[in-house]
Amino acid sequence: MKSVIPVELPNQSYEIAIAPGGLDFLGTWMQGLGLGQRVLLVSNPPIFEHYGERAIASLTQAGFVVSPCLLPEGEQHKNLASIQQIYDAALAHHLERSSCMVALGGGVIGDMTGFAAATWLRGLAFVQVPTSLLAMVDASVGGKTGVNHPQGKNLIGAFHQPRLVVIDPDVLNTLPEREFRAGMAEVIKYGIIWDADLFEQLDAAPRVDQLQALSPELLQTILTRSCQAKAEVVSQDEKEAGVRALLNYGHTIGHAIESLTGYSLVNHGEAVAVGMVAAGAIALTHNLWDETANTRQTQLIEKAGLPTQIPSAVRVDDILPVLQSDKKVKDGKVRFVLPTKIGAATITSQVEMTTLRPLLQTLVAS
Amino acid sequence: MKSVIPVELPNQSYEIAIAPGGLDFLGTWMQGLGLGQRVLLVSNPPIFEHYGERAIASLTQAGFVVSPCLLPEGEQHKNLASIQQIYDAALAHHLERSSCMVALGGGVIGDMTGFAAATWLRGLAFVQVPTSLLAMVDASVGGKTGVNHPQGKNLIGAFHQPRLVVIDPDVLNTLPEREFRAGMAEVIKYGIIWDADLFEQLDAAPRVDQLQALSPELLQTILTRSCQAKAEVVSQDEKEAGVRALLNYGHTIGHAIESLTGYSLVNHGEAVAVGMVAAGAIALTHNLWDETANTRQTQLIEKAGLPTQIPSAVRVDDILPVLQSDKKVKDGKVRFVLPTKIGAATITSQVEMTTLRPLLQTLVAS
Ligand SMILES: NC(=O)c1ccc[n+]([C@@H]2O[C@H](COP(=O)([O-])OP(=O)(O)OC[C@H]3O[C@@H](n4cnc5c(N)ncnc54)[C@H](O)[C@@H]3O)[C@@H](O)[C@H]2O)c1
Ligand SMILES: NC(=O)c1ccc[n+]([C@@H]2O[C@H](COP(=O)([O-])OP(=O)(O)OC[C@H]3O[C@@H](n4cnc5c(N)ncnc54)[C@H](O)[C@@H]3O)[C@@H](O)[C@H]2O)c1
Ligand SMILES: [Zn+2]
Ligand SMILES: [Zn+2]
Repeated sequence: MKSVIPVELPNQSYEIAIAPGGLDFLGTWMQGLGLGQRVLLVSNPPIFEHYGERAIASLTQAGFVVSPCLLPEGEQHKNLASIQQIYDAALAHHLERSSCMVALGGGVIGDMTGFAAATWLRGLAFVQVPTSLLAMVDASVGGKTGVNHPQGKNLIGAFHQPRLVVIDPDVLNTLPEREFRAGMAEVIKYGIIWDADLFEQLDAAPRVDQLQALSPELLQTILTRSCQAKAEVVSQDEKEAGVRALLNYGHTIGHAIESLTGYSLVNHGEAVAVGMVAAGAIALTHNLWDETANTRQTQLIEKAGLPTQIPSAVRVDDILPVLQSDKKVKDGKVRFVLPTKIGAATITSQVEMTTLRPLLQTLVAS
Repeated sequence: MKSVIPVELPNQSYEIAIAPGGLDFLGTWMQGLGLGQRVLLVSNPPIFEHYGERAIASLTQAGFVVSPCLLPEGEQHKNLASIQQIYDAALAHHLERSSCMVALGGGVIGDMTGFAAATWLRGLAFVQVPTSLLAMVDASVGGKTGVNHPQGKNLIGAFHQPRLVVIDPDVLNTLPEREFRAGMAEVIKYGIIWDADLFEQLDAAPRVDQLQALSPELLQTILTRSCQAKAEVVSQDEKEAGVRALLNYGHTIGHAIESLTGYSLVNHGEAVAVGMVAAGAIALTHNLWDETANTRQTQLIEKAGLPTQIPSAVRVDDILPVLQSDKKVKDGKVRFVLPTKIGAATITSQVEMTTLRPLLQTLVAS
């Protein structure tokens, strides 16, 4: 079972290869890319513990000269200090313009490796080997890379496309369950905004709240269709001028919730889940979609073991100012992505802040 | 007297406007770019002292909301710490995706502002207002941005094109003479590798070693033709895959000399001047060009008040290993740009290190 998804971009195209056991083919699949010998393998200690040896073996066997660079685990280390660690390792390993960085990890490792690759010697090749579900279906595709500023997430970054993405679903076996569910939030997102058929398959499955409950075929479908959806959106709009904004579905309010809970109480996927429920409710009050669709969305989110209510720790009055300080704001207007039916969404700046407050209030957990 | 040079790139084109008094039109000329209101003006204290007020007045009058960000002066501050200062200022001034950074300064300010713009919110617009001759004819054109790593110059960086370059030759009046001559080294470089007519005009001028010795027309010609040369090269090869390497003429050995003298004894332009003399000598021994052309180059460099000999503080034996660690090395081969006649050059990896040593020895100052 191997799926290959081509990502076609104006300046550079690349492939996403999805295959159980794919980690062992990393080196072989990289051979066709015309890269130099030297590879910096960026990861964190727990992930490297699980998969580092296999990645290195595969790369070495294919003739690459690999050096690992291990960064401390966690979002709190997604900062310029970690980037400097990658730079130092790149220098120590004598990377040249033709060399490559490989990210072996979740979205944190992927975003940082991509940013370091974008900015070392003014741009090196890099390869994504995402190990979390979220990184597989979202972070590793699309070329957004970056780190956090002490005062805001992902404020520092660059667009830099990977040369290859290797997704081995087997590595999800060691992913904590809560991280798995967080990734499912983004999968459901694609079902709502882009791919009705994906939604239907998730809806038809007996369970989607843990890896072990999925058939290998459904898992392959989830990964393939999600990457396909993201690749299609990104190909149409690499630099986020238009349609790419659809990917922010659930993220506007989601980000506010993450930020107001200090990025600790709820994780990103959970916040996005709540954000999608909120966006669904807004769409309903604006007659953009109907009750049935809205309910189906909420039920799927629940089935995935994801929250559908704003945590009671969050005060609705605090959400609105956060929305207005979001970096996607243009000239003070908040832009929302709202679903129009299952499988399609639209972007609007027409949501009045005055109607938003009471609506959000109904979504707060009691 | 206003010259406008279009720089045509696959993804984005922009103009270089060269005009005495142009600083006062900065705001007006930026009005056509479709930018948001907020502008961060990056400079250093001495330059801001001279020109900050006029820049701000011009921007404000055109409707922009400007905040200055002053960085400490000097190459030793071209590092990530200064970039973080720009990030902090960008945050404090609430820059949005549509906002713009303006670099008012020499190449150091330009490179850093460009890099910060490339990486803040994954890429903001930026405008170059170069104030040194070197920045006018070289650093501000072409989209290379970046900072130094403690262990090497410009190792950290990105390609990011400005949206506009505004060159006001009048600001050169306050530029120290030695900095002026350093810029002339790059001007002479364009004469050798690209524009024989520029070389002839410089050759025909009574003096080229200080600003005051140039007629306004010759100065305009120098700026226009140099930018034109760089723009042509860059347009043909934005990401430095081929012809752009020509711009490294004089820089291979120049960089080694800079590095071996600790970036203090000789400045960049002086090192490039010596590097061009060395490359000319290598070209001569390889029968790529003739004695006459070689002598004309050396004489013009001398006339510009630039050095033509390797400083005696540098040991030739130290140069070779530095060449081999240069980031332009591919698979261990040093690539040289060598002139084939006045106005044209070629790139070669055929120079034997064994022949290089005795040749460089003859160029050491006694
Ligand atoms: N670039 C993009 O387009 C994009 C999109 C979405 C999210 N992101 C970024 O991605 C990050 C979130 O990604 P994430 O959820 O993968 O977080 P993460 O990288 O922190 O991974 C989550 C946790 O799971 C662990 N982990 C990952 N894979 C594992 C495995 N196979 N086995 C055991 N443990 C494993 C990690 O060590 C970490 O502790 C955020 O920083 C976010 O900003 C980027
Ligand atoms: N991006 C590129 O393509 C490119 C090309 C060449 C050089 N560079 C970079 O440019 C830098 C060198 O540029 P530079 O020579 O302009 O150095 P610089 O920016 O340090 O300026 C030289 C000195 O002149 C001062 N100065 C500049 N303009 C002045 C003015 N009008 N009046 C009074 N003082 C003035 C500066 O404050 C500084 O002290 C290096 O860091 C180099 O790496 C970049
Ligand atoms: Zn997300
Ligand atoms: Zn130079």
